[in-house]
Amino acid sequence: MPSDEYVRIPEADLRRFDLALLQGLGLSADHAEILADNLIAADMRGVRTHGHVMLPKYGKEIGRGSTNVQAQPRIVSETPATVHVDGDRAPGAVAGHFTMQAVIQKARANGAATGFTKRSNHFGAAAHFAMMALPHQMIGFAATNAGPTMFPFGGRRRIVGNNPIAFAIPAARERPIVLDMAMSVSANSRVAIAERLGQQVPEGWILDRDGRPSTDPADLAEGAGVSIGGPKGIGLSQVVDLLAGVLAGASFGPAVGRPQPDGSHGDTGHWFHAIDVAAFMPPDAFTALVDQQIGLFHNAPRVEGTSRIFVPGEIEWERLDESRQLGVPLLPFVVDDLNAQAEQAGSSERL
Amino acid sequence: MPSDEYVRIPEADLRRFDLALLQGLGLSADHAEILADNLIAADMRGVRTHGHVMLPKYGKEIGRGSTNVQAQPRIVSETPATVHVDGDRAPGAVAGHFTMQAVIQKARANGAATGFTKRSNHFGAAAHFAMMALPHQMIGFAATNAGPTMFPFGGRRRIVGNNPIAFAIPAARERPIVLDMAMSVSANSRVAIAERLGQQVPEGWILDRDGRPSTDPADLAEGAGVSIGGPKGIGLSQVVDLLAGVLAGASFGPAVGRPQPDGSHGDTGHWFHAIDVAAFMPPDAFTALVDQQIGLFHNAPRVEGTSRIFVPGEIEWERLDESRQLGVPLLPFVVDDLNAQAEQAGSSERL
Repeated sequence: MPSDEYVRIPEADLRRFDLALLQGLGLSADHAEILADNLIAADMRGVRTHGHVMLPKYGKEIGRGSTNVQAQPRIVSETPATVHVDGDRAPGAVAGHFTMQAVIQKARANGAATGFTKRSNHFGAAAHFAMMALPHQMIGFAATNAGPTMFPFGGRRRIVGNNPIAFAIPAARERPIVLDMAMSVSANSRVAIAERLGQQVPEGWILDRDGRPSTDPADLAEGAGVSIGGPKGIGLSQVVDLLAGVLAGASFGPAVGRPQPDGSHGDTGHWFHAIDVAAFMPPDAFTALVDQQIGLFHNAPRVEGTSRIFVPGEIEWERLDESRQLGVPLLPFVVDDLNAQAEQAGSSERL
Repeated sequence: MPSDEYVRIPEADLRRFDLALLQGLGLSADHAEILADNLIAADMRGVRTHGHVMLPKYGKEIGRGSTNVQAQPRIVSETPATVHVDGDRAPGAVAGHFTMQAVIQKARANGAATGFTKRSNHFGAAAHFAMMALPHQMIGFAATNAGPTMFPFGGRRRIVGNNPIAFAIPAARERPIVLDMAMSVSANSRVAIAERLGQQVPEGWILDRDGRPSTDPADLAEGAGVSIGGPKGIGLSQVVDLLAGVLAGASFGPAVGRPQPDGSHGDTGHWFHAIDVAAFMPPDAFTALVDQQIGLFHNAPRVEGTSRIFVPGEIEWERLDESRQLGVPLLPFVVDDLNAQAEQAGSSERL
């Protein structure tokens, strides 16, 4: 059984490795930097489901041409409070970064702004883009549709992804609130990692192809993630698909990120929003109140067996601190995959 | 045990009754109309938890002065894409309506807009405000904080409400998608109605004061609603409280809608957003694609025991059709309460 004990790689080494590998795959230095940031941030925050574990998949998408390494995302239409971006089939990290930057700029000028991206790809952790708002004293939001892994309520066909949403909210002495949640009980790549590690998944995570509960991670391939709150999670997944997919002008439903009968490959769409805190109150006043609200959670009496109450993003901030000290945590199988990929891409860097 | 069979009241009769009662309570004719619309729409859509069952509670809030019947909501600050409203302690239906109207106007001018309301009260069903966007070919969003009925993850103090969010998305031949979901497995007033009807609630809906699962609806009074998806629902509740409460400049956390030590009464805050479909694609093209996505859900193969797949809002659209034909459905105890309230308010109308 493959080991699930982390290897720790110094951040600078991992970045050098990433940049060499990504440029080997054909990305510009700028785009390689943006994608490396995205992957490194995820692993450093302990979100191992959305970090370097994705890179071999991204490499395959580049290989078959559904991701365009020379893409130049561009704004196709805009209003004072909206921006519509054609991602030009860029890596999702690049197209998403481009769009969220434009959204933040417009929010600075007009109080709030909303953006959509079409012709993009898997963008990593949604939190990454929501968090781009934080240094600007803004509240950030990001969402995406994703390859189909959820059944309609009462159905048994993979019809939409578990389409995550993320919020980032600045605080003062506390760390910012960062909520990043998929609409299934567990992230799909968490199930995939369990499969890779030869582990079973807990009951209540996945359904097999006939809609029956399963603990075998392999069943997710044709089955589905269990929706949070019964019809609620799949309902919100459908809504995210209607915005990030349909309104964005991207693929939607089961076509997202999947080969199509005509030989094309479904694209992925994203949805971003930023609210400038200063449009409503002085940022310092706001962040002080955010701290106060967080304190209410931290200081609540606990149920038996709970030693500490966490607020959204708190565990990830602590993992980040740890990673800064110890290095970026990667699973051994991920390191092996990355080294093999580097060799294939003609990069001389190894981890 | 009180009956749970509906009495059907013709819509026009109920409206006449409401207007007389609400004006008896001191509301202007305009505001009475807005609040009556809100309550009637909820009951007609079969959302009995947020319709006339709330009116006695609203009456009490007027009686103790925490709701101001002569309120004049006003814009306290604005930018091209944002509006901040002081509800002046109006009924939530009135303050919310005022804010969402302003948000829609700004979205028309600038592509999208975001609004917050402070000094408001319980606003009924969040869907009602999201749906205000539909005739404008916009996507509507509404959220609110609410009186504390949820525990932190691992905690046992009522720290925030089950803070609902709602989306409304226009369609073409299909009915619009309307998703309105609280962050607890079940709406609180659904539990309250069960209590009133002498019924138990299913397992997995509520926790008692010590955080243990319960089926006795009375336990919710000091207990909590179960969060959807474990930490996810309470995480999103906290985020909604940080926006609809903290950023709005309203009460937040356990103070929402509750008497405070200094004799004051915590207000309620709301959060609205509208996106003009035309900023991204021709509305007809959009709604045709929405229909197509809905069709994917409807036509998916079903699990055994499911005769039909519903999309968000569909059941409510069918209840609305039914109510138009048969009259507005009210529970007998609600009719009794309303008649008693009308008498007290000096209205001569009876149901």
